[in-house]
Amino acid sequence: MRQPLITLTTDFGLRGHFAGAMKGVILCIEPHARIVDISHEVAPCAIAEGAFTLAQAYRWFPAGTIHVAVVDPGVGTPRRPLLVQAAGQYFVAPDNGLLSMMYAREKHGVRAVSAEKFFLKPVSRTFHGRDVFAPVAAHLARGVKPPQFGKLISDYLRSGFGMPVQTSERTWEGAVLVVDRFGNLITNFPVEEFRAILAGRFEVAVGAGRIRRCASSYEAGGEGELFLIEGSSGYLEIASRQASAAQLANCAAEAKVRLTVE
Amino acid sequence: MRQPLITLTTDFGLRGHFAGAMKGVILCIEPHARIVDISHEVAPCAIAEGAFTLAQAYRWFPAGTIHVAVVDPGVGTPRRPLLVQAAGQYFVAPDNGLLSMMYAREKHGVRAVSAEKFFLKPVSRTFHGRDVFAPVAAHLARGVKPPQFGKLISDYLRSGFGMPVQTSERTWEGAVLVVDRFGNLITNFPVEEFRAILAGRFEVAVGAGRIRRCASSYEAGGEGELFLIEGSSGYLEIASRQASAAQLANCAAEAKVRLTVE
Amino acid sequence: MRQPLITLTTDFGLRGHFAGAMKGVILCIEPHARIVDISHEVAPCAIAEGAFTLAQAYRWFPAGTIHVAVVDPGVGTPRRPLLVQAAGQYFVAPDNGLLSMMYAREKHGVRAVSAEKFFLKPVSRTFHGRDVFAPVAAHLARGVKPPQFGKLISDYLRSGFGMPVQTSERTWEGAVLVVDRFGNLITNFPVEEFRAILAGRFEVAVGAGRIRRCASSYEAGGEGELFLIEGSSGYLEIASRQASAAQLANCAAEAKVRLTVE
Repeated sequence: MRQPLITLTTDFGLRGHFAGAMKGVILCIEPHARIVDISHEVAPCAIAEGAFTLAQAYRWFPAGTIHVAVVDPGVGTPRRPLLVQAAGQYFVAPDNGLLSMMYAREKHGVRAVSAEKFFLKPVSRTFHGRDVFAPVAAHLARGVKPPQFGKLISDYLRSGFGMPVQTSERTWEGAVLVVDRFGNLITNFPVEEFRAILAGRFEVAVGAGRIRRCASSYEAGGEGELFLIEGSSGYLEIASRQASAAQLANCAAEAKVRLTVE
Repeated sequence: MRQPLITLTTDFGLRGHFAGAMKGVILCIEPHARIVDISHEVAPCAIAEGAFTLAQAYRWFPAGTIHVAVVDPGVGTPRRPLLVQAAGQYFVAPDNGLLSMMYAREKHGVRAVSAEKFFLKPVSRTFHGRDVFAPVAAHLARGVKPPQFGKLISDYLRSGFGMPVQTSERTWEGAVLVVDRFGNLITNFPVEEFRAILAGRFEVAVGAGRIRRCASSYEAGGEGELFLIEGSSGYLEIASRQASAAQLANCAAEAKVRLTVE
Repeated sequence: MRQPLITLTTDFGLRGHFAGAMKGVILCIEPHARIVDISHEVAPCAIAEGAFTLAQAYRWFPAGTIHVAVVDPGVGTPRRPLLVQAAGQYFVAPDNGLLSMMYAREKHGVRAVSAEKFFLKPVSRTFHGRDVFAPVAAHLARGVKPPQFGKLISDYLRSGFGMPVQTSERTWEGAVLVVDRFGNLITNFPVEEFRAILAGRFEVAVGAGRIRRCASSYEAGGEGELFLIEGSSGYLEIASRQASAAQLANCAAEAKVRLTVE
């Protein structure tokens, strides 16, 4: 028996009926679908966090997986729904930059979904997760072919949460992408590109925090000391042993991160 | 292969073993069940919120779905477990008003579950979600027929979270049913009945907030302005562009909502 | 069709990609696995809470279930991954005491997982849930036999969250294991061992709270009164009618609980 896999990444929260209604819609259209929650706890309207969350998760799923992502402050405006093929998988999301971190990593083909026959009727003004994105994913899971949903486009939105900017020979400015629940600050400094740069002396400034060394486990470092660690995400994280780096540095998502090397 | 669908709506929270234990019980009795979480984050003991959450979700599920709802401040008292058939689906819940919003919408038949052979032994005093409601749902999923659980009754509890009350020719008083995670205030004013009334001049008072216009998307309105929007729930919501209406109006669930028309 | 059951208990939280990535890894290795969340909301690094959560949940699952538990402040240090057989089920977890409450209850065989061929490559320093524990569970679900993962050991870590200590003929000192979302204080006093002791006059002191009676439902007791109740967990809980016992007693997890009998 085919059991197509559909994941959900939203900012709807786990309180309320929103994720449940999406699941019901999917199971009415494709009763054999297996639905996997990636997260419904993306901060409300936080497109960068949603993009990061999905980009960290999708690559661990099997070929053919259909990822539905809905962080959609523009719901009710004319922003387009997209169906994207990349990495042997499918992505259904609004055209607001939510797939940018995936675009940066994978060859991709983007379609604007225009075939309204695959939407619920009537489409509400405020809940396209249920009325547009879930049913499109479910019809795709049932075997509708991508071209039946709409045409390939090239003018889709790409956002630049991406990379730190080098501001002088010895300085880079980047940002905190997201604070995880342990208070670790996940930056947009890719591990691979900065490992060599950080081999010498350096200082990272973020909020009230100053970091001058790297560690190899969260157990490293003294009480209240901040350190850099190569995060499992592929980005440098700022952490502290059994304490919240965000509290110690007194900063939050989108805080500036400034790296200076000697 | 039959894979009966069972949904869960509770106030147990996602921290703790409660939802997990219910799932284990179901899978021991009916290994082929597919379990879908609607929400476990209903506010503790908030029967109206639970009723609203379930009423918003059930109608998107396929015929035959079994919905288990447990918001049950009276656990351990003699309130009865119910098995209800409505809308081609099944509902298993305590008799405390939790199904009231569904009753208001659907023809329904209500049974008081008395066949204790379908409960776990011994039944604890405090966790009937695991010991009563989950196993009843699982036995139903396996094919036990509704009359085997207990007799039809007519004296079940119906609560009146329902409708705003018209207090004069030009005024109605209703309430905030629930505040969603974006801070939108979901009222008990049904869109269909109030759309015409709101076509002229009006004022809605809720907490410190005064609303005088409707909008068609969450992107409408000025900074800090409150507006009405036709919610995807079928009820009028009070919202604000990229801000929390609950904070702006300084109010919470169960706040009074007063509508005056000219 | 075989559909092996894998549960997840972690402190990763539901925000972020962590639980989702683990699920993807499992489904790549064993596409037929059914994944059930017990909880991802164990407090960060709270091994006792994780141990309690898992110990409360596992026994409700069918034989053959594979439980993955990851509360792992030592990730990146040399603490060993374990594969444990007990109660006809399997447990995959770090060797840090997380399985202690299960060990106390069941005959068990413990293996140190050393066969790195079952890990993802490379293993990150910070996310063994994805790179070690999830793939080990998935290979086990596919049919790899326990001895293929590593050897039986006897020097695994057992923690003593376990039992209250009798400090005099008439006094016992124990602790609050966890505070549930209703504010009930779940103690480490087992119901069975203390039921007879509490039949006479007693006083329990916890934080600012003094408790002198038992109740049979959460609806019992006066406004603001604290009482003992036989929790569904098998431990005595300190509760209050429709109020938070934790707030009334002004205490939290790990608070001391002192019982004195006359």
